[in-house]
Amino acid sequence: MADLDSKFDIPPSGENIEVTTGPIRGSRKVHVGSLKVAMREIDLEPSSGEPPLRVYDTSGPYTDPAAQIDIRKGLPQLRREWQLARGDVEEYAAREVRPEDNGQLGPDRSGGVPAFPNVAKMVLRARPGANLSQMHYARRGIITPEMEYVAARENLGRAQIAHTRDGQDWGAAIPDFVTPEFVRDEVARGRAIIPSNVNHPEAEPMAIGRNFLVKINANIGNSAVASDVASEVDKMVWSIRWGADTVMDLSTGRNIHDTREWIIRNSPVPIGTVPIYQALEKVGGIAEELTWEIFRDTLIEQAEQGVDYFTIHAGVRLPYIPMTAKRVTGIVSRGGSIMAKWCLAHHKESFLYEHFDEITEIMKAYDIAYSLGDGLRPGSIADANDEAQFAELYTLGELTKRAWAQDVQVMIEGPGHVPMHKIKENMDKQLAACGEAPFYTLGPLVTDIAPGYDHITSGIGAAMIGWFGTAMLCYVTPKEHLGLPDRDDVKVGVVTYKLAAHAADLAKGHPAAKLRDDALSRARFEFRWRDQFNLSLDPDTAEQYHDQTLPAEGAKTAHFCSMCGPKFCSMKITQEVRDFAAKQNAGVESFVAAEEAEAGMADMSRVFRETGSELYMGAGGREHD
Amino acid sequence: MADLDSKFDIPPSGENIEVTTGPIRGSRKVHVGSLKVAMREIDLEPSSGEPPLRVYDTSGPYTDPAAQIDIRKGLPQLRREWQLARGDVEEYAAREVRPEDNGQLGPDRSGGVPAFPNVAKMVLRARPGANLSQMHYARRGIITPEMEYVAARENLGRAQIAHTRDGQDWGAAIPDFVTPEFVRDEVARGRAIIPSNVNHPEAEPMAIGRNFLVKINANIGNSAVASDVASEVDKMVWSIRWGADTVMDLSTGRNIHDTREWIIRNSPVPIGTVPIYQALEKVGGIAEELTWEIFRDTLIEQAEQGVDYFTIHAGVRLPYIPMTAKRVTGIVSRGGSIMAKWCLAHHKESFLYEHFDEITEIMKAYDIAYSLGDGLRPGSIADANDEAQFAELYTLGELTKRAWAQDVQVMIEGPGHVPMHKIKENMDKQLAACGEAPFYTLGPLVTDIAPGYDHITSGIGAAMIGWFGTAMLCYVTPKEHLGLPDRDDVKVGVVTYKLAAHAADLAKGHPAAKLRDDALSRARFEFRWRDQFNLSLDPDTAEQYHDQTLPAEGAKTAHFCSMCGPKFCSMKITQEVRDFAAKQNAGVESFVAAEEAEAGMADMSRVFRETGSELYMGAGGREHD
Repeated sequence: MADLDSKFDIPPSGENIEVTTGPIRGSRKVHVGSLKVAMREIDLEPSSGEPPLRVYDTSGPYTDPAAQIDIRKGLPQLRREWQLARGDVEEYAAREVRPEDNGQLGPDRSGGVPAFPNVAKMVLRARPGANLSQMHYARRGIITPEMEYVAARENLGRAQIAHTRDGQDWGAAIPDFVTPEFVRDEVARGRAIIPSNVNHPEAEPMAIGRNFLVKINANIGNSAVASDVASEVDKMVWSIRWGADTVMDLSTGRNIHDTREWIIRNSPVPIGTVPIYQALEKVGGIAEELTWEIFRDTLIEQAEQGVDYFTIHAGVRLPYIPMTAKRVTGIVSRGGSIMAKWCLAHHKESFLYEHFDEITEIMKAYDIAYSLGDGLRPGSIADANDEAQFAELYTLGELTKRAWAQDVQVMIEGPGHVPMHKIKENMDKQLAACGEAPFYTLGPLVTDIAPGYDHITSGIGAAMIGWFGTAMLCYVTPKEHLGLPDRDDVKVGVVTYKLAAHAADLAKGHPAAKLRDDALSRARFEFRWRDQFNLSLDPDTAEQYHDQTLPAEGAKTAHFCSMCGPKFCSMKITQEVRDFAAKQNAGVESFVAAEEAEAGMADMSRVFRETGSELYMGAGGREHD
Repeated sequence: MADLDSKFDIPPSGENIEVTTGPIRGSRKVHVGSLKVAMREIDLEPSSGEPPLRVYDTSGPYTDPAAQIDIRKGLPQLRREWQLARGDVEEYAAREVRPEDNGQLGPDRSGGVPAFPNVAKMVLRARPGANLSQMHYARRGIITPEMEYVAARENLGRAQIAHTRDGQDWGAAIPDFVTPEFVRDEVARGRAIIPSNVNHPEAEPMAIGRNFLVKINANIGNSAVASDVASEVDKMVWSIRWGADTVMDLSTGRNIHDTREWIIRNSPVPIGTVPIYQALEKVGGIAEELTWEIFRDTLIEQAEQGVDYFTIHAGVRLPYIPMTAKRVTGIVSRGGSIMAKWCLAHHKESFLYEHFDEITEIMKAYDIAYSLGDGLRPGSIADANDEAQFAELYTLGELTKRAWAQDVQVMIEGPGHVPMHKIKENMDKQLAACGEAPFYTLGPLVTDIAPGYDHITSGIGAAMIGWFGTAMLCYVTPKEHLGLPDRDDVKVGVVTYKLAAHAADLAKGHPAAKLRDDALSRARFEFRWRDQFNLSLDPDTAEQYHDQTLPAEGAKTAHFCSMCGPKFCSMKITQEVRDFAAKQNAGVESFVAAEEAEAGMADMSRVFRETGSELYMGAGGREHD
């Protein structure tokens, strides 16, 4: 075992696998209420006179100094008791792992990654006739602990604020305060999902829906190089540290099964997959040789491992395929291409479409949510909003209703590459076609001409479509179209999407979203540099950039920035304005320059000199001109 | 002199100062028509069967291998003959440089940067009674060479395309083809400006207006550390290489005059400044000591050097200042704060407002454009679209009309920090208040919580407001709010804004904007990797990212990417789709799998093995799922 381990960069048993742990700078993990809902609190400097700011926390136990992290064991099973208490599950012996599950590796996994050491031999599913879907409970009027958890998690600062709404929500129904009953109702209507496979009890419940905070997804996945499994677990932990609400394991090649096991057992966020990738591996990469039976077996295999949502490209129907013939970039979705190839080779309707209700039977037995894939999404500006794309979307709407007929949760995947003026049509058509099922989009990228910067071209579209009503934004990294993202790319992608999602929340008028902006802006204006760093989405980068110009420790408490220096300071002027306005209000006509304010500047001036800087260090920085 | 030079990182005379020269990868400088309008052509691989793609080029002679670059001499005077031919200029001896112009340095500049060696002793201005403004010519029906140059420059590929418009232009009046007469008419109406100080004949004419391509501005500027002058010239050249249409020199501290001279003499793009910064230096940084006379002298000083547009914060009027008292971030514009402080200290109306018509007299004598500053712009989400901001905007509208009464060109600066749902109101109010004078915005940033990523938070707002009608977008770098941008930050800021501006052009339906997207998408889909890199905004980064995953040279001609490998390829499937569709159209009912296409894959497979890769290298890259 030790040999195998070292071969694949898995340290020998007894040693831990390296992942990033410890609190995010300047904040503490807190657990709120009887369900111990995980949140993060950012403490502010005493001079602020402000209470800690509570923020949404996706990072799981990894940022909790009290947690014992052992990647070989996996995370605690937060939801297991809730599941068993419902009395509708049965335990059974899991499907045996087969050679084809891991790219034809033998039982000793020779040549592959080691098996996860703590695999459950027994797994859960619905008892005959039962339905484990949160939607099913919701529709019967049952408020589950998962719904209660979500309600507590979403509220954050809402209790503390006066509810004067400032936003344009385009017809959403965002409540002032999220109650468990509201969550239940949203799930029952299909407007939100709580992805929660019964075999992933480690996950902290979260909701995806346009009346909740906008969520983001990060994609990771093993490459064909087996030694990457440790780094994929690390990427998962790294992506949730910076804010990924769900993670998709898009592993391909060999070792798919074992890689996924390591990821799920250590993930506190829902895990999504595209099962057709693994099914394709099982037939040696020959799309034509896929069968419903192989696909079905793959669904069961992944269901038992605990995948929380499946991307299913059941909308790529035979008649739509010729609609893509004249496109500039044809079919760019990998899953869509696989199904198109299968349909063409057999000249038959897609087996995913034909067997959709049978797939739904599996989904409800484990509570797996559909993520109905947009296999015909546009891969270029030229192909946006075309006939093929919307033909598939209407079919996804039809399938949504079929899944809902069995009380199974659904979200809908969306594009892709779309110029700004065509984004809203995507949202409007999706809402109409899919009965307000949550939309889950990739970007969209608003131009094709910036490879290397596609986190930004797509972040623009993501912020906009998030504002219009998209519930979850699938991140894009700087490497999109070019190569495989590394750890740094994952972080840049996650933070970019987190800021896009937050911008959408602000514009929609989510009741508490603005609290963080206001706290940070007050910190900025009052030169509380550490508060400004700690309140930001990426405190480490913020401090690092600050220190490149003013590295001295004293500069972090200095009441000026590197751009204006201490002699001239807009904060001081604003104080004078406030004094002036106060005097005007008090009926004092003449304005007396507030010379007393000068006194404090001497101190600042001294600190400034000590940091080795001079007046006006230059341009282009803080609020130039 | 040599001593001084080495002290300030200016190499001794005879050696050249280092700036980045040479063609942008994969492209050639071309000069089109009798005016030799500079453009760039990107050559595509012969297999594409496509002609070179012509793109807008801001980079000046630096990317022309035929040009002789000598930073000590400055650029050739492209416009000088045109100016003299108009017969309305007079030459006169320039104002002597005074110690206060460079922070109280003596005539030997001891302790400062060296003077530019090739300073003109004689400068130009309008003869008495004349008006050099492009608007003045335009209103008299004169089409200047500058207007002809702009017309040629803006058209690019428009001649080659069928004019089926696809865009939402929000009431703009974008023509199918830009004629010199259209340029004249836009300038005459005030809907566009051509910043073109008579003493900056080195500049290549360009237009800022919502019926032209969206432009971007990069800010540079010397810091108090004198040795930076060479690096500021380098930053200017670097920023125009990547697409900056204008550059603002926001230098502060000492050496302002000399730094500006080095920049202007070497700049092929219009240069903007904020004269109040230098005026403030002349009074030792004490805002209250500013006078109209000192300010006026500074305007003349900078006018003679050739500054093409001045940011003038004449809208910060005394009665508006108390409106900022309750803001979260008060007054964040440096120029706005200076004027607010002056107004408060004297309890007087702003001298900029009071002397506005006299400023306009200076503007028209040199053809300097106004960039009416938004000194009361919001510095946080909380302060967006408030009373103070719009009070100032309406005053800027009044001042626009006063400037236009003297035929002087005007653009209007805009915010700042604005959540997405409040962006359009900014554009709508600006168009209404300022009679369609070009809007020039800083971002806006759509959230406050991502310092370190504010090129992105602002790029989102910039793309949106550019779509709505903003004519020029002022870049923001990753260092915004934190420190001083270095060369890398400048590039990231420029490319981010270039992609935002292009996304806006696409969404507005600029006739030829989509040509580049389509060319790149075709290259992407046909695995012409080098074409994909060369067509992108930053070919160097695109190739570098590609090579991190597949470094072998063979991978650049391989017909697959690192994400899917050769065994499964969506391009091949699309070819099958096309064959299928063709057969259907020909009445052939049954689909025969195009096995012949397999043959070509053997070659690809070999290349793939040679690059050391395997099937399915992983996830998260090209169009995942």
